[in-house]
Amino acid sequence: MGSLDLDEVLDFAIALAHRAGQAITEGSETRFRNATGFDEKKNTADLVTETDQNTEKLVHEAIKARFPDHEFIGEESWAAGEQNEITDAPTWIIDPIDGTTNFVKGFPFVCISIGLVYQSEPVLGVIFAPFLGQLYAARKGSGAFMTSPLHPERRSLPLAKPQPLSSFKQALIAFEWGSDRSKEVMERKTRTFERLTGDAAGGVQGGEMALGVRSVGSAALNFAHVAAGCLDVYWEIGCWAWDVCAGMVIAQEAGCAVVGSKAHAAEAAQGAWRPAVTPAVLTGRKYLVVRAIGDAPHESGEDAQKRTIQTFYNAVEEWDPK
Amino acid sequence: MGSLDLDEVLDFAIALAHRAGQAITEGSETRFRNATGFDEKKNTADLVTETDQNTEKLVHEAIKARFPDHEFIGEESWAAGEQNEITDAPTWIIDPIDGTTNFVKGFPFVCISIGLVYQSEPVLGVIFAPFLGQLYAARKGSGAFMTSPLHPERRSLPLAKPQPLSSFKQALIAFEWGSDRSKEVMERKTRTFERLTGDAAGGVQGGEMALGVRSVGSAALNFAHVAAGCLDVYWEIGCWAWDVCAGMVIAQEAGCAVVGSKAHAAEAAQGAWRPAVTPAVLTGRKYLVVRAIGDAPHESGEDAQKRTIQTFYNAVEEWDPK
Repeated sequence: MGSLDLDEVLDFAIALAHRAGQAITEGSETRFRNATGFDEKKNTADLVTETDQNTEKLVHEAIKARFPDHEFIGEESWAAGEQNEITDAPTWIIDPIDGTTNFVKGFPFVCISIGLVYQSEPVLGVIFAPFLGQLYAARKGSGAFMTSPLHPERRSLPLAKPQPLSSFKQALIAFEWGSDRSKEVMERKTRTFERLTGDAAGGVQGGEMALGVRSVGSAALNFAHVAAGCLDVYWEIGCWAWDVCAGMVIAQEAGCAVVGSKAHAAEAAQGAWRPAVTPAVLTGRKYLVVRAIGDAPHESGEDAQKRTIQTFYNAVEEWDPK
Repeated sequence: MGSLDLDEVLDFAIALAHRAGQAITEGSETRFRNATGFDEKKNTADLVTETDQNTEKLVHEAIKARFPDHEFIGEESWAAGEQNEITDAPTWIIDPIDGTTNFVKGFPFVCISIGLVYQSEPVLGVIFAPFLGQLYAARKGSGAFMTSPLHPERRSLPLAKPQPLSSFKQALIAFEWGSDRSKEVMERKTRTFERLTGDAAGGVQGGEMALGVRSVGSAALNFAHVAAGCLDVYWEIGCWAWDVCAGMVIAQEAGCAVVGSKAHAAEAAQGAWRPAVTPAVLTGRKYLVVRAIGDAPHESGEDAQKRTIQTFYNAVEEWDPK
């Protein structure tokens, strides 16, 4: 185990992501032939497709064949109670299709997310969006990169020199509407959204007037976009370790700050920056990620990350996801 | 004028969109060198870049050279009061950069939107997203198509056989947060959003529980996505004719229903389907578009479009945009 060669594992994971991506695009060919070819898991906003399960099986078997002593956590195995604790062993944490609703609809923000945790820390991540041909990848200590059809060469993340972010009013933020739409959660969400986007000068109490909001329906790709530097902040409550594990590595390697809940963020702000992703944060289902920020004359990039997290979390009302 | 060859004009417009797209990607090269290279027009959520103006100039001059007797409406000329009425003359209605905030941030949903109105009706539209390499185009009576780096051949829109949409709970909808964030508008928006997404069974009064919400920050690309069939509905208050003119042609040619305000939708539902886009609808700044819907055993696709519009607009509180 001590000899785990992460460069070799990264090559393997990238090749595997491409194979899985092909299974996903092939699965989409049959999607429209049988529009009811999915089961309802929770409600209509939370769908599982046959392709989802087939892709997980393909990935699972490829990893078992190459690394027979590695552990494996996926949505299906977690739901079945087979494996739900992060140990020190090399553990693959995978979402075969992140953006299942998008997949069902043909909205192209669909990806496979492959993360590896080693010695209780996420160390490798690959996100591949087959309908866009975009791949994002990183391993701990080596930086992050992406490839795309228009730029097939590896480009480092973030894609441009990190700019300062002097005000929250300049922040392009991402959040999602999620599948829990009960009154209690919706009220907390809409109050949060109103404070994040409203104009205090226009009468919205506590309004922070973010520049804009984007929702593409994939947690993994939101992490990737913050890593690329084209989103400033992404916040989420309710997704799972397999949605974010790969994205966390890619984001951290691209200079992002990744924190968990409000409580974790407050604690992290006191400590050495950037905060570590512990198993508790990885599985905590509350996530906030802020892009790499450049130093400004009167504020370091680190301080700007801390300030942005604080501003964001001041506006947020958390809840405990189901 | 009677001899306007729309196929020839479409070829011209597609070539022009590619040239403009190149100007946009070249503009983005300098963007990160001078992060403050934009003026504030209204507030930080509403940006105009130098590239925006340069691209409009490029497009304007190319059209003037090729069609010297055509009229031209663009954001800049409208703001200057030069031209702001739709006449029977061939009139180009263009947004040089739709998704300016995305452009500034490097979020790839940026496009040029080129529409042509003839005899007071939108008859031709080209939308090109240079960072994605995606082109959407249509001319009246000939259907709509798209090309992309992974599928360079022309694919008809919608991309798959239109499925029925038996319930609003299956609808993937798009709306945007816009730049007016005053208390009055925010309250109407958040109440609307809550009704569209909330779960009535979970206590949200009037909740229609849409499957999901997407916001990519470009009106033109939202129209294109509904035309492609990967979004079910897009609703907007506050954008302008140049944001939607091309998208309206592409959407209509892909079998979508395009309506204006609540009042227009109610009126249209009484008449011959699909409703015409009159100059009043084109410049009305309130838009709703519903994808092509397939016939179901107990409901025609047309009736499903009408029902979807009615459900959507029951949840909406309109306001008059600034």
